[in-house]
Amino acid sequence: MQHFQELARQFETYLKQYDFFPPGPENLYVPCRSILASGGKHIRPTLCLMACELFGNLSEDAFHAAVALELFHNFTLIHDDIMDHAPLRRGKPTIHTEYGLASGILSGDVMNIYAYEQLRKINPAHLPEILRIFNKVAIEVCEGQQLDMDYEAFDEVGIDEYLEMISLKTSVLLATSLQIGTILGNGNSHDAENIYLFGKSLGMAFQLQDDYLDAFGTGAQVGKRLGGDIRSDKKTYLHIVCKSVMDDKQSELLNSFSALSPEEKVAKTISFYKDLGIDKRTRQIILKFSNQAFDYLNKIDKPEARLKPLKEVAAFLLDRAY
Amino acid sequence: MQHFQELARQFETYLKQYDFFPPGPENLYVPCRSILASGGKHIRPTLCLMACELFGNLSEDAFHAAVALELFHNFTLIHDDIMDHAPLRRGKPTIHTEYGLASGILSGDVMNIYAYEQLRKINPAHLPEILRIFNKVAIEVCEGQQLDMDYEAFDEVGIDEYLEMISLKTSVLLATSLQIGTILGNGNSHDAENIYLFGKSLGMAFQLQDDYLDAFGTGAQVGKRLGGDIRSDKKTYLHIVCKSVMDDKQSELLNSFSALSPEEKVAKTISFYKDLGIDKRTRQIILKFSNQAFDYLNKIDKPEARLKPLKEVAAFLLDRAY
Repeated sequence: MQHFQELARQFETYLKQYDFFPPGPENLYVPCRSILASGGKHIRPTLCLMACELFGNLSEDAFHAAVALELFHNFTLIHDDIMDHAPLRRGKPTIHTEYGLASGILSGDVMNIYAYEQLRKINPAHLPEILRIFNKVAIEVCEGQQLDMDYEAFDEVGIDEYLEMISLKTSVLLATSLQIGTILGNGNSHDAENIYLFGKSLGMAFQLQDDYLDAFGTGAQVGKRLGGDIRSDKKTYLHIVCKSVMDDKQSELLNSFSALSPEEKVAKTISFYKDLGIDKRTRQIILKFSNQAFDYLNKIDKPEARLKPLKEVAAFLLDRAY
Repeated sequence: MQHFQELARQFETYLKQYDFFPPGPENLYVPCRSILASGGKHIRPTLCLMACELFGNLSEDAFHAAVALELFHNFTLIHDDIMDHAPLRRGKPTIHTEYGLASGILSGDVMNIYAYEQLRKINPAHLPEILRIFNKVAIEVCEGQQLDMDYEAFDEVGIDEYLEMISLKTSVLLATSLQIGTILGNGNSHDAENIYLFGKSLGMAFQLQDDYLDAFGTGAQVGKRLGGDIRSDKKTYLHIVCKSVMDDKQSELLNSFSALSPEEKVAKTISFYKDLGIDKRTRQIILKFSNQAFDYLNKIDKPEARLKPLKEVAAFLLDRAY
């Protein structure tokens, strides 16, 4: 069993070795190459490879699926950035900012098709099942993005609605990456189910932790300016839980922070969250999902040594011991 | 062998009978249902069904593929309309005009995925081959759209470049629709090749005729206002051929029409095209592709009576006898 970093490196070598796109039309394929080369941790493809290796041998099919997952994920990033009017991604201008709206749309479209072209190369014995699972998650990711946009326009979003949205937008793709790897490694259906649920809980914990760190992280943990979500009035888990516990007077107080300078607004909101115990509640739910994740992983009947790399990556992503 | 109209009706019944989308999120699926219900001639799915019936029995798989082709085509219409800033389609507001940019992008994305979900249902014996062909044409259609946008920004576009662009943007999807139907009807590889080339030539003739009728059609043939392409300075075949034969003085004269009222500009340009014999040249190339189409169809070893429905639809689309 290889560790995350080793398999991520192998994936990156594979990605560089094969140029999946033809030379032209340049205006179509330059943006595709650009986003693929712009970094990212390659979590999804590497989880797929790790799961495959947990149950069987790392096959060419696992690499096809891994590339498909990476292409699909990058396609959604390009289109989400257009819909969210995001100017930057990974510290660089987003694709539509650099190449224009039409290029963003069309490059995303063609990357999605190239994802399916990678899947197509998978052994016909596995192809229909992989395609079914892939389509399911691809539809869910679109639905998650739609709910995210819908909720931004709502006055009130329920906690369960929010959890469902981040599940669709983030968790299920991590879960499916592991599930596809398991199937291609010839794991049984129990294994595929448990690893899927491991990935889903991991994704939930990871996304909620992202919300948490924005307000309560250290600079090093966040990797970006603290309180970005507060500045942009994003409906994070913190915000939604806060809304669900505040009384009218507290609500008035929170609203009054909008008149302050951004720095003051962030500082006041964070201390307000703390007063209401939002930080503690958020840590609790992260721990709940995080524990769930490890429970599902422990259901898999493999020696501890073989499960270790997946436990390590979960612990790394969730910044905890295991 | 059923005629185009009969199979188109069967397809429409099938499309209405199955609701391919779940109820929600509404903002995602209402636009999908809306464009599917907005009419259109269903040429691609019906050609797929016709080809299948020419070689074998109309199977459930042929309907899966037909729906996939229709979903894919409508996905490209939604996204193309965004890229082309088109306010109307089939006499109604385009999807992004009615539902907003984000809905246009995301509804298109999910429709493309649903197209693959239809393909996934095809018999595993045929699935890898159908998927390969479908991905190929889907990539070509994106490339055609990119070239179309590229050429709009160019000063000069060569005739061959233009023909390549319309081939990618229009003809190959018609060709592939027929090819997929042939494969699913268990036609042999010769048949699949000839019917593909029939569809490609038919598509070329059809698209060039569209350019021709904009300037030289009657109101009834065009179905829209005459000279729309001239008004919007679209680089049609007429425009490109005209540019390739004009001398500097003629070029100056043509440019001077831009100062006129739109009605005068259209009238003067049309008569200018006639003086230079552009109408005749265009009729010649349409006839060339149109004859090619019939030649390829005649290579298929089937009794005349069975080929008749495809000949009829080609003759109907190209407004000619056969």
